[in-house]
Amino acid sequence: MSSDKKIPYKIYLNESEIPKQWYNVRADMKNKPAPLINPGTHEPMGFDDLRPVFCDELIKQELDNDTAFFDIPQEIQDFYKMYRPSPLVRAYCLEKALDTPAKIYYKFEGNNTSGSHKLNSAIVQAYYAKQQGLKGLTTETGAGQWGTALSMACAYLGLDLKVFMVKVSYEQKPFRREVMRTYGASVTPSPSMETEIGKKINAEHPGTTGSLGCAISEAVEVATTNEGYRYVLGSVLNQVLLHQSVIGLETKAALDKYGIVPDMIIGCAGGGSNLGGLISPFMGEKLRGEKDYRIIAVEPASCPSFTRGVYAYDFCDTGMVCPLAKMYTLGSNFIPSANHAGGLRYHGMSPILSQLYADGYMEAVSVEQTSVFAAAEQFARTEGILPAPESSHAIRAAIDEAMKCKETGEEKTIVFGLTGTGYFDLVAYQKYNDGEMTDLIPTDEDLKKSIDALPKV
Amino acid sequence: MSSDKKIPYKIYLNESEIPKQWYNVRADMKNKPAPLINPGTHEPMGFDDLRPVFCDELIKQELDNDTAFFDIPQEIQDFYKMYRPSPLVRAYCLEKALDTPAKIYYKFEGNNTSGSHKLNSAIVQAYYAKQQGLKGLTTETGAGQWGTALSMACAYLGLDLKVFMVKVSYEQKPFRREVMRTYGASVTPSPSMETEIGKKINAEHPGTTGSLGCAISEAVEVATTNEGYRYVLGSVLNQVLLHQSVIGLETKAALDKYGIVPDMIIGCAGGGSNLGGLISPFMGEKLRGEKDYRIIAVEPASCPSFTRGVYAYDFCDTGMVCPLAKMYTLGSNFIPSANHAGGLRYHGMSPILSQLYADGYMEAVSVEQTSVFAAAEQFARTEGILPAPESSHAIRAAIDEAMKCKETGEEKTIVFGLTGTGYFDLVAYQKYNDGEMTDLIPTDEDLKKSIDALPKV
Repeated sequence: MSSDKKIPYKIYLNESEIPKQWYNVRADMKNKPAPLINPGTHEPMGFDDLRPVFCDELIKQELDNDTAFFDIPQEIQDFYKMYRPSPLVRAYCLEKALDTPAKIYYKFEGNNTSGSHKLNSAIVQAYYAKQQGLKGLTTETGAGQWGTALSMACAYLGLDLKVFMVKVSYEQKPFRREVMRTYGASVTPSPSMETEIGKKINAEHPGTTGSLGCAISEAVEVATTNEGYRYVLGSVLNQVLLHQSVIGLETKAALDKYGIVPDMIIGCAGGGSNLGGLISPFMGEKLRGEKDYRIIAVEPASCPSFTRGVYAYDFCDTGMVCPLAKMYTLGSNFIPSANHAGGLRYHGMSPILSQLYADGYMEAVSVEQTSVFAAAEQFARTEGILPAPESSHAIRAAIDEAMKCKETGEEKTIVFGLTGTGYFDLVAYQKYNDGEMTDLIPTDEDLKKSIDALPKV
Repeated sequence: MSSDKKIPYKIYLNESEIPKQWYNVRADMKNKPAPLINPGTHEPMGFDDLRPVFCDELIKQELDNDTAFFDIPQEIQDFYKMYRPSPLVRAYCLEKALDTPAKIYYKFEGNNTSGSHKLNSAIVQAYYAKQQGLKGLTTETGAGQWGTALSMACAYLGLDLKVFMVKVSYEQKPFRREVMRTYGASVTPSPSMETEIGKKINAEHPGTTGSLGCAISEAVEVATTNEGYRYVLGSVLNQVLLHQSVIGLETKAALDKYGIVPDMIIGCAGGGSNLGGLISPFMGEKLRGEKDYRIIAVEPASCPSFTRGVYAYDFCDTGMVCPLAKMYTLGSNFIPSANHAGGLRYHGMSPILSQLYADGYMEAVSVEQTSVFAAAEQFARTEGILPAPESSHAIRAAIDEAMKCKETGEEKTIVFGLTGTGYFDLVAYQKYNDGEMTDLIPTDEDLKKSIDALPKV
């Protein structure tokens, strides 16, 4: 126990220790993730198929299952220095409050204005767009973390950015919208009258408040019909997990520095960008048979892709304009309850993580939203940080594991990813504070309906 | 210039380098700040006079003009480790955007959930209340930074907290309110029907949306009429500047580590808690004749205590229930325009800073709010951090000084305090983004009216 005394509350690496390469976990996977396929022909999408939508360099990263390390360009390294390395925090105060023998660490990615880990990939995608001589980017955003991160990256590099924001969020989350505008992005409520697909949806569903799938469709349309624009996405894709490996590499370097070997690594899972990034180097060791760790994905009981979905080809978007990806999915027309406040609303899951889960390298648990907010509150009061609802799924699971240790007396070392802060999620906190939050678990029938509608591949 | 290469983007001290003592600048002042006096008798307030309102240990700190260093209790040192040391950031990206030879550093205090430096004193005041065996604390809050910080501190220590929040903020800033509630504080809109003074004000001004002065009066009443409660204040007082010296001590330690000697130190000034804390050790050197620095207070043109106020005894609150303090003031019934969005709305100024300014140890400038938000936007886009409007006053002045260097070619070193983040100020940002922000400068006549109403001492 006395060696504990040497471990600071926050382990900060030096700037020189920020990773200079990203790690591509696919290189160590025996079973590679299934390729994206064309929804019409069911043929794998190659470089040329993807060029109208994505930047060239990013497509190369997307398709490369073999290169283990990719150099991080110097300009991105410099940008990373503005907000990285992020701290690996020893949750001494939470441990004390739980009275657990477990040792709990969290990698905190929320100390930047985007409020989450999304910035790690946003700057990369914007950088390669700039390198390619593009004018600008388009994207969609729901709650706004991704849109904010990309706005920051585009402001820094002088790129134009057009964000389609789900109309209901645009109206109910004006603050996120203003952050994006402050960074110079143009933010349009979706469905809009600026695109063909937007006009069509508005005509078919007058008064609709929009969906992520619709916003994706609009963003893709603008990117593909305007010279010098490309579309970017903040999760799910292989390239995004590659960029997010910076989280895991820093985490591992910080642990190694103090000789700490975790027993388990826990992350929340929506599209998988944070979880995939956090676990990458640890999963690499596991795949190579060098080490063993429990790796636990935590998802909302209201949108349980891993725990109640199927592993199959599906559309990445609810609008069904994108390629098909093989992933754990609830079906692209599954919509979580409107009362679902905890983020992680995506129907599918990163193809990389899906393959790893199918092959038995990961566990998954689902948690209910009232228990997630209870964990968030306990964490806020003891560790000082107001966590994002998404991140609080991981907190919930980490606390549950720490309480098991209390029962058994085991001094396990738990590492979890704290992806971001909850400053823009206070409507949900208010609901919890007022005792008005409920749990929302889809029925088997609900799931059957959307899963039965999966495309036949 | 090559030595610059060694200076990282962010200078983080080690946890062992967090100050273990606060520095009391009064010890090095030849002319001590004038004492608080009783508004009835005009006699200086002593320990016994202040006991019904404040905690004992804090009164000792308030009255002690001679002790240069106060030990920081271990429990507070441990709490500080959760969010300190805060980084001293080299603004490489801003420098590049300005194309200035100046070297710009900022001490960033916003990386905690309260979003500002207020937590540095909140935990101290809560700690001494706990030590004294009190049940809880009362306070007022306007925009909510102080209330949030105190909520976090009280949650950590298990103290009860009652916050009177100016009614208009309570209604228009529900998110700040929810953060406080998440930390377990009870938040009451002021004026309320829970206090005698609140009932009186509601009866006299039906439908009033409240003021800071009224909220202070209610908080003081609850503290003095309930067994086991005391009142706490987040700025102005000597004790608060003492606690906030942790900012300046860390800043100086970080600069010393790299052999950097600043030419000027810039801070925004409302009640003076951040500015006083940031400059303390530098001012100490200046007072002792060891070094010279330009020290610049930046205040809003709409509430210009230093630049257009008088140095005189005045009430600390608009409700006129508190002791009189000698300070630069616009008169306790001066109310900045309702359109004033930039914070720093306090009519007076810390007595310590007032004495130092009167003695010629500091400069002061006032800046207009549209130029403050222009600086905020430029800073956000280059340095990535969305700054609080208050902090952006210091950014404005720092940019102005850096642009002077560009003209003269001088490589001056500028240090400024970035007190916090603007996540809860997006209504003001929206106004700026929409081009609807105006400048608001009080007329000489306005000021004369409130200054003429100063108490006769």
